[in-house]
Amino acid sequence: MRFVDQPHHDGSALYVSTLEPELGGHVVVRARVPLAAEVTAVHVRTVYDGEPRFTEARRTSFQAGGYGAADEWWEAEITAVDHVTPYRFLLHTAYGQAWLTAAGLVEHDVTDATDFRLVAHEAPPAWTKDAVVYQIFPDRFAQSKPLDRDALPEWALARDWDGDAVIPSGPGTAEQFFGGDLDGVIEHLDHIQELGVDTVYLTPIFPGRSNHRYNASSFDHVDPLLGGDAALLRLSTALRERGMRLLGDITTNHCGDAHEWFTAAVSDVNAPEREMFYFDPDTGDYEAWFGVKTLPKFNWGSPLVRERMTAVLTKWLDVLDGWRVDVANMTGRRGADDFNHEVAASLRRAVSSTRPDAAFIAEHNHDATTDLDRDGWQGTMNYGGFTRPVWTWLRGDDLDLEHFLGVPGGVPSRDGGQALASFQAFSAHMSWRSFTHSWQLLDSHDSPRARTVTGTQERHLVAAGLQATLPGVPMIFAGSEFGLTGVNGEHSRTPMPWNRPQDRDESTHEAYKTLFALRRAEPALRHGGLRWLHADADCLVFLRETAEESLLVCARRAPGEPLALPFDTRALGVYNATDLDDLVIPGDGPGLRVWRLATGT
Amino acid sequence: MRFVDQPHHDGSALYVSTLEPELGGHVVVRARVPLAAEVTAVHVRTVYDGEPRFTEARRTSFQAGGYGAADEWWEAEITAVDHVTPYRFLLHTAYGQAWLTAAGLVEHDVTDATDFRLVAHEAPPAWTKDAVVYQIFPDRFAQSKPLDRDALPEWALARDWDGDAVIPSGPGTAEQFFGGDLDGVIEHLDHIQELGVDTVYLTPIFPGRSNHRYNASSFDHVDPLLGGDAALLRLSTALRERGMRLLGDITTNHCGDAHEWFTAAVSDVNAPEREMFYFDPDTGDYEAWFGVKTLPKFNWGSPLVRERMTAVLTKWLDVLDGWRVDVANMTGRRGADDFNHEVAASLRRAVSSTRPDAAFIAEHNHDATTDLDRDGWQGTMNYGGFTRPVWTWLRGDDLDLEHFLGVPGGVPSRDGGQALASFQAFSAHMSWRSFTHSWQLLDSHDSPRARTVTGTQERHLVAAGLQATLPGVPMIFAGSEFGLTGVNGEHSRTPMPWNRPQDRDESTHEAYKTLFALRRAEPALRHGGLRWLHADADCLVFLRETAEESLLVCARRAPGEPLALPFDTRALGVYNATDLDDLVIPGDGPGLRVWRLATGT
Repeated sequence: MRFVDQPHHDGSALYVSTLEPELGGHVVVRARVPLAAEVTAVHVRTVYDGEPRFTEARRTSFQAGGYGAADEWWEAEITAVDHVTPYRFLLHTAYGQAWLTAAGLVEHDVTDATDFRLVAHEAPPAWTKDAVVYQIFPDRFAQSKPLDRDALPEWALARDWDGDAVIPSGPGTAEQFFGGDLDGVIEHLDHIQELGVDTVYLTPIFPGRSNHRYNASSFDHVDPLLGGDAALLRLSTALRERGMRLLGDITTNHCGDAHEWFTAAVSDVNAPEREMFYFDPDTGDYEAWFGVKTLPKFNWGSPLVRERMTAVLTKWLDVLDGWRVDVANMTGRRGADDFNHEVAASLRRAVSSTRPDAAFIAEHNHDATTDLDRDGWQGTMNYGGFTRPVWTWLRGDDLDLEHFLGVPGGVPSRDGGQALASFQAFSAHMSWRSFTHSWQLLDSHDSPRARTVTGTQERHLVAAGLQATLPGVPMIFAGSEFGLTGVNGEHSRTPMPWNRPQDRDESTHEAYKTLFALRRAEPALRHGGLRWLHADADCLVFLRETAEESLLVCARRAPGEPLALPFDTRALGVYNATDLDDLVIPGDGPGLRVWRLATGT
Repeated sequence: MRFVDQPHHDGSALYVSTLEPELGGHVVVRARVPLAAEVTAVHVRTVYDGEPRFTEARRTSFQAGGYGAADEWWEAEITAVDHVTPYRFLLHTAYGQAWLTAAGLVEHDVTDATDFRLVAHEAPPAWTKDAVVYQIFPDRFAQSKPLDRDALPEWALARDWDGDAVIPSGPGTAEQFFGGDLDGVIEHLDHIQELGVDTVYLTPIFPGRSNHRYNASSFDHVDPLLGGDAALLRLSTALRERGMRLLGDITTNHCGDAHEWFTAAVSDVNAPEREMFYFDPDTGDYEAWFGVKTLPKFNWGSPLVRERMTAVLTKWLDVLDGWRVDVANMTGRRGADDFNHEVAASLRRAVSSTRPDAAFIAEHNHDATTDLDRDGWQGTMNYGGFTRPVWTWLRGDDLDLEHFLGVPGGVPSRDGGQALASFQAFSAHMSWRSFTHSWQLLDSHDSPRARTVTGTQERHLVAAGLQATLPGVPMIFAGSEFGLTGVNGEHSRTPMPWNRPQDRDESTHEAYKTLFALRRAEPALRHGGLRWLHADADCLVFLRETAEESLLVCARRAPGEPLALPFDTRALGVYNATDLDDLVIPGDGPGLRVWRLATGT
């Protein structure tokens, strides 16, 4: 598949005059059209208040990427009539018409589902789209002091940090306790910051009867086993001194069965808290996450849930810079009840009004697209639109996993065209804003490790390279920078090998530092548009472009033929690449390379 | 494109054990899988409360269409956990996995947007999916008595039924008055019923200062110029005596500026009705449909609008069997306000609780998919998913229209593959229920006539044949059965040529009667599944199938090569076709042919 000669628009600042319009604001949108397409006229179709309107576009002198490509630019002014105003381009040529939507160019009629979206909701804080996030599972990251076995609660199964293997499934999985704590995190901030990371995201820190703490027994205090409230404040302060941020993890779908709200509710049918959960009026049984009875599900139809959870989410914003929201996809949803969008918007407003610079990101493990652009979640953990396509393209030949992030049958092996189709299937169903504010992750505490999936350092670094160069906020799961392995989420929660240099792949670590430093150095990698140029089985090529620069990225999972691009310019090696006098991309691989296109020549 | 060997599911009764599950009800869903696909396992993926779940399917002895096709059937029981429960099939083969969604088979990951949908909302009344609807624009259908020029209101421009041409645009368009009335309709019920029609849909019958009456000055009484309330009752009674139904047309988006609600609102800033409209607090100006000041837009944030419009919609249900809702797409939408889904659901409930057998269909001229399956509109006028693809495929070579139902650039000429892609782009984004309850129309009072678009009787009858044989409720715009022409909506509002036999194409009329009688006679055309078998530039082939029978439809816009289908059976000519001993479809055309596949042989 070759896309070089395709008309293009992607919602980025190169194509849209403002990414944060007010409701009713006027916005210029542009399309780049290759001369070879012989386009004679362009209309922009908007949908205002549910009805399509057409605005004739004009050729403009606007130019970008003057690297010899024969493009013309068309633009039109449209209005952010609604909070989300869909738009698309209608291209007229001597050979017929075509629509340009976020799913690409089509020559038949399609629904508005993949229209570009002008979003006039309150914008996420500016820092979030520049962030590089580092995920820490506190029990496994670092100990500030040796495990005090006598101080452990009765449910906890004491484990030795460097001596015991993680129990990957079965009895003891949730109880194995390695004893990482928040002061341990502080001791490793140099490591974290040197990765190019500016944001630390902690999985839950409230007390719970498990090592993962997703079954909170309270939202009022930090687990004393982690160092308590004081340790969180120390960590927050240490991060701020470095200009870094700290995000928490909140379970809006459920709490633990030891939570005082639930114990009150379950012990007295007349307790005010009774309405906070779904009790069967006949049996007294209650709804729980996936039927796991330690995780009773909140009923967001209850005013008390709304009041108390709003208080929880806002209370911590003096030390936290926002939240990753656990099981956001199920929050407020149960059969006839669907409060999800309303709850997301209400909590987001509460969070933003407390801390205008707070982040608010949804966990959604399969498809968040219909929950985004609704004034709630600012982005999602983009398993569907990033993790999955990367895995299917870069999976190791010998990989043998039972599930593919929950899908039976293991991780399918797919070629570059299929991977690209998956990337685009998801990005086309969300606004550029939601796409670029979503987290792109290679793995997490809920998944196998990227190194296990890809099988080799070479392919792992192609994956990390895509994470560093594609739009979206990279989220690195602590330990993957050392090439740690794991076959499932539990197994991946490896205690960090601070004391086990033999378990640290330092060349992977160095490559991570280089890649994310590159992202930090290059505005085009953070804010540039995304134009796919080529996909074949083993090779993906794309541009990240601002008005000032164009970065060319070539990802190869295997060696292949050199690839000539029809740009009349030189390319300067930026990462893992030498300068090219003409644009013939070498075929060696696996590997990811980045060049800067020389402009104005 | 050949689809014969594709796995299939479509949400019809052949594939789903109940089309009207209760919330929480269990439903068996089946997939038909060709043996050649070498499928080794099948999972059904549902999304319950926002989270995917997988259920393993089993091979079943269920069979249908025993015409020599080597298929196996897989089935699994799923639950209607939510009001709309998405589902799809995961097929495992020796060569990899594929998803089967309503958009077809894909080998990459896609969002839930095109998942099949199990709908547990209250079902539309049973009669509606069997209906054939006939649209009447009352001023132009029939006069029960000569026009009384002295009795006309001052705005009306008297016209002679058979002597004056319709003014297609400019001054006089809305004022030209031909004087059709409701008793005139009664005089032609034989004609209507002989077409196979069982449902008459009248565009507005309330008084308004125009011939179209979309600018109602009252919703309380039928326009005396049409015969008043008594005439409506006579028409309703006459239809019921024939076992037929009558639908009205209601403007939920706006009323006329002469409506008493608006005159009260505009003349007194303290009037209770002031809240019913969008007045600018500074200028006193008001929001109107497309800026047309005679059509002030309702503010559905107003309790008074909700109360009064609910009263209007329910009040008429003693004589009407439901409503077609005008500008449903814009209703309740204005900038930050979006009450659309809430209003649609609230009005639908009010209508259904007054008349459980009432129909409630939305006008939506471009894309209703996100407004369907929300407990509101039972279906839409499917311009996007039917009219447009048919027009682009069957448009005449010399057609020269400025717009394509509002899209600049005229009606594109597209091949069969593109037309099919458009059909599927829309049907894949709605439930089978919404798809089959939507109206498929070739033209309306708002569009050019099908005969004008297609250019020839032959192609017009291919279009009518698609209308009669595809899923969805056919809506015939009065006069198209005579091959009337028109270049735009106004021009198409031709006074019916009852007295002008030379203007009636009686062979088209005969073909319409045959086609819609066929639909009425064949359950598979009304309730059967839809399986596309073939598409090329000039030819579309599909099956309509129940457990009992399979009808094969071949539509050709031009002659071509004979087409061999790999079914080991005979086919019996049903419409415009002779029996076939082997399944080689003749290449003559243009034309539409229907066969019944012999089963059990």
